[in-house]
Amino acid sequence: MSVTAPAGFRAAGVTAGLKASGRPDVALVVNDGPLDAAAAVYTSNRCKAHPVLWSERASADGHVRAVVLNSGGANCFTGPAGFQLTHATAELVGELTGCGAADVVVCSTGLIGYSFSREKLLDGVRAASAALAADGGDAAATAIMTTDTVSKQAVAAGDGFTVGGMAKGAGMLAPGLATMLVVLTTDAVAEPAELDAALRAATRTTFDRVDSDGCMSTNDTVVLMASGASGVRPRAADLHAAVHAVCADLARRLVADAEGADHDIAVEVVGAASEDDAVEVARSVARNNLFKAAVFGKDPNWGRVLAAVGTTRAAFDPLALDVSLNGVAVCVAGAPGEDPALVDLDPREVRVRIDLHAGGAEATVWTNDLTHAYVHENSAYST
Amino acid sequence: MSVTAPAGFRAAGVTAGLKASGRPDVALVVNDGPLDAAAAVYTSNRCKAHPVLWSERASADGHVRAVVLNSGGANCFTGPAGFQLTHATAELVGELTGCGAADVVVCSTGLIGYSFSREKLLDGVRAASAALAADGGDAAATAIMTTDTVSKQAVAAGDGFTVGGMAKGAGMLAPGLATMLVVLTTDAVAEPAELDAALRAATRTTFDRVDSDGCMSTNDTVVLMASGASGVRPRAADLHAAVHAVCADLARRLVADAEGADHDIAVEVVGAASEDDAVEVARSVARNNLFKAAVFGKDPNWGRVLAAVGTTRAAFDPLALDVSLNGVAVCVAGAPGEDPALVDLDPREVRVRIDLHAGGAEATVWTNDLTHAYVHENSAYST
Repeated sequence: MSVTAPAGFRAAGVTAGLKASGRPDVALVVNDGPLDAAAAVYTSNRCKAHPVLWSERASADGHVRAVVLNSGGANCFTGPAGFQLTHATAELVGELTGCGAADVVVCSTGLIGYSFSREKLLDGVRAASAALAADGGDAAATAIMTTDTVSKQAVAAGDGFTVGGMAKGAGMLAPGLATMLVVLTTDAVAEPAELDAALRAATRTTFDRVDSDGCMSTNDTVVLMASGASGVRPRAADLHAAVHAVCADLARRLVADAEGADHDIAVEVVGAASEDDAVEVARSVARNNLFKAAVFGKDPNWGRVLAAVGTTRAAFDPLALDVSLNGVAVCVAGAPGEDPALVDLDPREVRVRIDLHAGGAEATVWTNDLTHAYVHENSAYST
Repeated sequence: MSVTAPAGFRAAGVTAGLKASGRPDVALVVNDGPLDAAAAVYTSNRCKAHPVLWSERASADGHVRAVVLNSGGANCFTGPAGFQLTHATAELVGELTGCGAADVVVCSTGLIGYSFSREKLLDGVRAASAALAADGGDAAATAIMTTDTVSKQAVAAGDGFTVGGMAKGAGMLAPGLATMLVVLTTDAVAEPAELDAALRAATRTTFDRVDSDGCMSTNDTVVLMASGASGVRPRAADLHAAVHAVCADLARRLVADAEGADHDIAVEVVGAASEDDAVEVARSVARNNLFKAAVFGKDPNWGRVLAAVGTTRAAFDPLALDVSLNGVAVCVAGAPGEDPALVDLDPREVRVRIDLHAGGAEATVWTNDLTHAYVHENSAYST
């Protein structure tokens, strides 16, 4: 169901032939209203793909009627023809759905610097438009997959309204934002500013705290559209809660499907002087290749955790640091604690808990282990 | 020869039994003078091993008589007994060589959080002292190896003086400093302040620009001792040149022997608005796992280079960026250039050149590819 779970939306996913695999590769999500309120956040990478440059402007006024997405090419560093293709795609969606091109968000994913067929993409958009259906959420979620092994969908029910969402993302997963395309929909009645507040609050603690491999994409887009079709105007807290629930669900699914990963690792930092400190420490550990390789090998090498903590500017005393791995307190007050041999790293989910003993703030960043399969998948992506 | 190439030094390397492999694991380098001038730089990691905390104080006055080094354990996060062992080691070296403990630099390398035998280490120090020889440089360089596959030594001849050096380092190689223990010696006549200036200038553009895996160690130490035994007081520029030559040689050897690497990658950034910008961009690319995995797979995936560039704060216009891989201009002015299929990634040495077109500054950071062997070696280090 995902993006078509809330009332007022139709979606479709079709095969345009952009992918060599012959799998579906063009998706379309249309907001039939009555509202067209929207909010969006984009990659903070300064090398932005053409669709991001386009969509930033299209969504800036808080109104979006449709989102068109393609896999099979990122349309990034593809020259002027690449931007023209994004523009033409938006124009075509506008014609087909009865809105202006400036109300259309465009998303692309795939290889950077690779130009794909203009004709195939535009034909795919026409086919997707013809296939739009009120139960098209599954098809759309499938069509945005790249190296994803499963489609990622989530729904949260509010009091009289619904939030739905779909996501793609399996590699180049690091924030601001993790590499992902995410479309969220709701039938709540809400102003663009309310959607923006709910979306930013949710992404800050969900998608922005997924850091699979430390690599930030050029195409990340998260867009939230409200149709108002439920007729219900939720309280801000209720809207925030539902949007957060869907984002958290999708973010967890991204980690669980990260390319080549054997483990999902929650790096939990507590006792920090500030939330910024907690995030900085958690991210430093989440990006430490040596620690990530150790988790793959089921090696409870807590020294690598501390070596990563020591590279941060966070407030802490090295001789006060505690580290536990899956509940075993392997380091207490900066010295060896319980026997690391007690740590069971067989389960897919691993919890590293670091207590800085410097305050009351905390944060969790999710990452994955560094595996042979990660190296394998990413050593021959474009060839 | 290495550390015993300059006059006035003796060295030794012995087997103390700290390593399960039974390989040599304790080294000693003694400055017989007449001078005992010295300078040192240490890891900027805030979680410093006990030997670093000791040695920072020992070398602060610019006088060092001896450096004792052990592999088989980092003596980091080993509790009060760990610091006591470092202190006892320095005391013993002082007794055996006729200086004070405060003139002894102590270095350790190996697993963090692992306590090793006090008796074995101190017995090893006694054996090393008994074995000190004017041609002991080779033995010392061998005894500091951990996962290194070759010992790393270098010598540079100045006008009437010599600089020698030995290094260990193969993983957790990232700056300030790369994970390494380095002992440099010279028979030049020089004041501590002159040595400090030469050492800092050299490390800034050599060891600090090696970034094999983005992981910073807790034990990094680079120490330079001058015996004055040549009687020659070189001009500052000549001393700088010789120290730089030895550091550059050793730094290149560290990259060439990095754990599991198939390629040595020089990330060259030119056209930067400042040297800081150039270093930031080069380091961002050097730490990009996706790009590093692509090089392993001999995949000329230049999009990953640009995605990494885009995460920096350096001055540039995305549409002005040029990227070449081993001389093939795969990206010109932010658009596809020459055919990536022309890029030959078979040679071990890979050169990525990024022109930011934003100024006249440049910098090169060396890194390695991300390989199956890297994951393998680092997934079972402590077990």
